[in-house]
Amino acid sequence: MKLYGMTDSGNCYKPRLLFAKLGIPFEHVETSSRDGTTRKPDFLAMNPNGKVPLLELDDGRFIWESNAILLYLAEGTRFLPDDPYERALVHQWLFFEQYSHEPYVAVRRALSRYPERAAQATPERMAAALEGGNRALGVMERQLSQTPFLTGEGLTVADIALYAYTHDAQIGGFDLPRFPAVSAWLARVAQDSGHVPMDSAG
Amino acid sequence: MKLYGMTDSGNCYKPRLLFAKLGIPFEHVETSSRDGTTRKPDFLAMNPNGKVPLLELDDGRFIWESNAILLYLAEGTRFLPDDPYERALVHQWLFFEQYSHEPYVAVRRALSRYPERAAQATPERMAAALEGGNRALGVMERQLSQTPFLTGEGLTVADIALYAYTHDAQIGGFDLPRFPAVSAWLARVAQDSGHVPMDSAG
Repeated sequence: MKLYGMTDSGNCYKPRLLFAKLGIPFEHVETSSRDGTTRKPDFLAMNPNGKVPLLELDDGRFIWESNAILLYLAEGTRFLPDDPYERALVHQWLFFEQYSHEPYVAVRRALSRYPERAAQATPERMAAALEGGNRALGVMERQLSQTPFLTGEGLTVADIALYAYTHDAQIGGFDLPRFPAVSAWLARVAQDSGHVPMDSAG
Repeated sequence: MKLYGMTDSGNCYKPRLLFAKLGIPFEHVETSSRDGTTRKPDFLAMNPNGKVPLLELDDGRFIWESNAILLYLAEGTRFLPDDPYERALVHQWLFFEQYSHEPYVAVRRALSRYPERAAQATPERMAAALEGGNRALGVMERQLSQTPFLTGEGLTVADIALYAYTHDAQIGGFDLPRFPAVSAWLARVAQDSGHVPMDSAG
């Protein structure tokens, strides 16, 4: 399989981390969403939404959306439970990640980190992203005060997805020690077997 | 089962529409996210993220996030294919809906429709929502020019999810006739058996 992605992207780190944990070899194709590559016609022919990560299967078919790629790769493994309710909880946290967490935590990181985004980092936008991100971290804190992982006793793709932009949320100005259960969970995820850091491109 | 939801919300319409199509009875509990109800402690005890829809199972357990509820209810039905790749495409479009479509199409509708949101409807925000929404509709147009439904030949929960806020996108100022394949698909979804309109609370 071939994974088009940007090393310095949490969304692209998600499938790389799962590939590593599963021990599945893949070809990493460094593809930047910052230099316009993902908006060019040849990329749009693979993903009309113009985003990475993008997974190309061995038969040439494509899957886009980081969390859809996680679910595809995790089927039949310990990272995706078979029980219908436990699986629903995985889905619930994956949608939470894309709607209530990433648009604040990841976006504030990008606005803080990338020079080409600096003009967008208005005080109002940074304040709104801080508030939304802290709210999302608070929701995680509440759950992780009750269970070791987001959906219960075992690590699933929900943890992998939320680890991606939570583990370096301090780049965006988030104060992780304010969330002790989240901080303990970050360490727990990093200790799970097969873990690789974000800058390992595979 | 009990569904906490707001009649005038596309996200809440999604599970109501699927319940109707499946012929499964449920109890609708009108719950507004506009009057503060979903931010009160007794609601947060059910969904710490403070949002509707929220599904309560007969055994008292909860599932939140509209698209996670759709996937839970659709398992084993014609609305969720068993083939791993076809299922990945359903997931892909569900995540697209929450990240690339709803934050523009649904938000512009809310900013246009609800008096308490009017102060947020700045020209810059409305322009950004129009641009993002048109981009999302363009991605759908490209797919729906090739296949009758988003993932292929059959209607799935991906179509139900994207129908919810696309079918009345004109409330938010979107010009649907500019997207003929999307418009034809809207009619196709509405003609599928068991369809109910958004204002039917169940």
